[in-house]
Amino acid sequence: MSAPKIVILGAGYGGLMTAIELQRQMSYNEAEVVLVNKHDYHYMTTHLHEPAAGTTTDDKVRIDLKDLLDFDRITFVHQTVAGFDLDTRSVQLADGSVLDYDYLVVALGSEPETFGIEGLREHAFSIRSLNAVRVIREHIEYMFSRYHENPDNPAFTTIVVGGAGFTGIEFVTELAERLPALCRTFDIPREKVRLISVEAAPSVMPGFDPKLVAYTMERLKEMGVEVYTNTPIQSCTKDGITLADGTHIPSYSVIWTGGVRGNRIVEASGLETVRGRVKVDAYLRAPGYDNVFVVGDSSVIFNKEGRPYPPTAQLATQQGKACAYNLLSLIRNQPMKPFEPHLLGTLASLGRWEGIGIVGKMKLYGFWASVMKRLSDMRYLWQIGGVSIVLRKGRFL
Amino acid sequence: MSAPKIVILGAGYGGLMTAIELQRQMSYNEAEVVLVNKHDYHYMTTHLHEPAAGTTTDDKVRIDLKDLLDFDRITFVHQTVAGFDLDTRSVQLADGSVLDYDYLVVALGSEPETFGIEGLREHAFSIRSLNAVRVIREHIEYMFSRYHENPDNPAFTTIVVGGAGFTGIEFVTELAERLPALCRTFDIPREKVRLISVEAAPSVMPGFDPKLVAYTMERLKEMGVEVYTNTPIQSCTKDGITLADGTHIPSYSVIWTGGVRGNRIVEASGLETVRGRVKVDAYLRAPGYDNVFVVGDSSVIFNKEGRPYPPTAQLATQQGKACAYNLLSLIRNQPMKPFEPHLLGTLASLGRWEGIGIVGKMKLYGFWASVMKRLSDMRYLWQIGGVSIVLRKGRFL
Repeated sequence: MSAPKIVILGAGYGGLMTAIELQRQMSYNEAEVVLVNKHDYHYMTTHLHEPAAGTTTDDKVRIDLKDLLDFDRITFVHQTVAGFDLDTRSVQLADGSVLDYDYLVVALGSEPETFGIEGLREHAFSIRSLNAVRVIREHIEYMFSRYHENPDNPAFTTIVVGGAGFTGIEFVTELAERLPALCRTFDIPREKVRLISVEAAPSVMPGFDPKLVAYTMERLKEMGVEVYTNTPIQSCTKDGITLADGTHIPSYSVIWTGGVRGNRIVEASGLETVRGRVKVDAYLRAPGYDNVFVVGDSSVIFNKEGRPYPPTAQLATQQGKACAYNLLSLIRNQPMKPFEPHLLGTLASLGRWEGIGIVGKMKLYGFWASVMKRLSDMRYLWQIGGVSIVLRKGRFL
Repeated sequence: MSAPKIVILGAGYGGLMTAIELQRQMSYNEAEVVLVNKHDYHYMTTHLHEPAAGTTTDDKVRIDLKDLLDFDRITFVHQTVAGFDLDTRSVQLADGSVLDYDYLVVALGSEPETFGIEGLREHAFSIRSLNAVRVIREHIEYMFSRYHENPDNPAFTTIVVGGAGFTGIEFVTELAERLPALCRTFDIPREKVRLISVEAAPSVMPGFDPKLVAYTMERLKEMGVEVYTNTPIQSCTKDGITLADGTHIPSYSVIWTGGVRGNRIVEASGLETVRGRVKVDAYLRAPGYDNVFVVGDSSVIFNKEGRPYPPTAQLATQQGKACAYNLLSLIRNQPMKPFEPHLLGTLASLGRWEGIGIVGKMKLYGFWASVMKRLSDMRYLWQIGGVSIVLRKGRFL
């Protein structure tokens, strides 16, 4: 009898952690593990706002998979997933090849949700991958370089960030801190640059603690970011955005961070989804399929009050560990464990040395929040790669 | 009687040197000197290929005029020249204001000559100012960042340099040296990048010594630059170029270095011009106007064989000095001196530590040519600003 074959789709927080835990815990020949990923590296999605703004190099937010995984034990397939078929238990890859599986782990992450806002999909950038954020950074710099073509055209130096949730605020503050240097490089007076944060909800960081929201607003003001709350975007063109009240803001650089939804590949598989996310059972399995696990942003789980947990890196990482445990339990004919999230807190950066967050019941502001965020990053790096990865990728300063 | 008013148009090599020499030699109240320039800095045109390729920061090739000139003695007008009127002895500025003069120094430089090649003016970049080369650098990086949108589209990573004279070759070699770093930053395999030099003449560096041409060809080959000689460009669109034989080269980054012509403002003034350049008399004055001097690329002078001297920084600088001398001679009612160029040689870089050139009767290759070029740069910096400018702007390494 040959070893059962586990195929993991995606090497984000959930898929990577599943692979790492399997590698750590499985015995020789207990299972054949295949990891499929579009890139041969893992990137830290929660830090993409930094290379997007140009404050960190790309290499600080990505880790080569070969440095995290033993490719003799985990087979790595460098390919894009095109789809999967639950009946034939097979995965289709973009190059036309097919992988069979006994167990499947779907960890394909999320995609931007544009809520049907006209033109957003075509004309706005999203902070969704390393390749995507490189384009954002280079686009902004390219537009700044063209300022002198016509200093009276504000679109070159106006940056609109749609959505003032975590990603939007982390990106806009990061970029605000870089502005003085950018203005020097491109000979642009600071007052010619507009950084605009637009949010449909009544406040920035919707749903967050009001005191932390107030602190964030204070910081944004200090940094010269214009904030429009209660302001839905009506449409987006290549020349800027139009707000619901008809105001047009000329901008060649619109970055949309207003929401995510599940991956369309998951939707297309026939699994039951809510906005592209699979409502998994207590063991993280897709309803009706005992051999299919779904983790990270591709899944959705609910708390005791019946409210969905927001999709975060922390949750995905914990799910990855639990998924590996349950997979090995199934293979070993041992009882699985229901997944229980243990969320330690939430932290957002507001530039390099500023942040806000909640850890346990404690609210954190400013410098200490930024230190705490660094520590939680270190913890993650430690979990996936030990001390060598912490030293190479940790952002100590 | 008030002091005569000298107005200098342009702070390139010729205009700047005129202003500096006047500042050094004129006595208190002997003349009122006004320098008009579009930027409040001087830039070293012969080095623009470096920030264009991204191998030098912008600040290494520009010098604030306030660091070179005493603004109590030279009045600086930070404006773009719109035109000048020889009959009313007045200069029109872009902001609508007018400056009168007793003596005029026209040093407005050159513009790209596209020889009527279709689409070149609209779609190709030129290495003509600091603002223009920033756009080139950022454009190339932006296109590289977009490579992952479609790795099968070669236009993102093909750079076509039209013209293989000095500027074209210096730029393409500089860029070739930066390619490994660029490919690393943007995750692009080197073999996906094409650097193409296209020249209508039978060889690169047309008119240069055959041994030096052969050396240049060798270097280009080593660096992986594709060279097409005897190959006129037929047309250029936003998607690439078409050669005379009908071959289409897909490229979003076409840089045209194929020729310069005099400034159109000079042409429009009514002065007699040949391709926008004024054939000046022995004292550097425009024919028919004893109070109008023309220096640098706006002028043309001929050697004993009746062949025009090529427009170079070296020539412009020497003309600037001679022009200042003759201006003061006129004011002092002393005899002017006819201008005699003393050309010391010609040097071209082929990347950071390689070059070719002729100094006196000696041919130089490789490392020693690059060292010699650095020394001649130092000499120029010394001439305009003394030791402090040499230390701040010199490129020692």
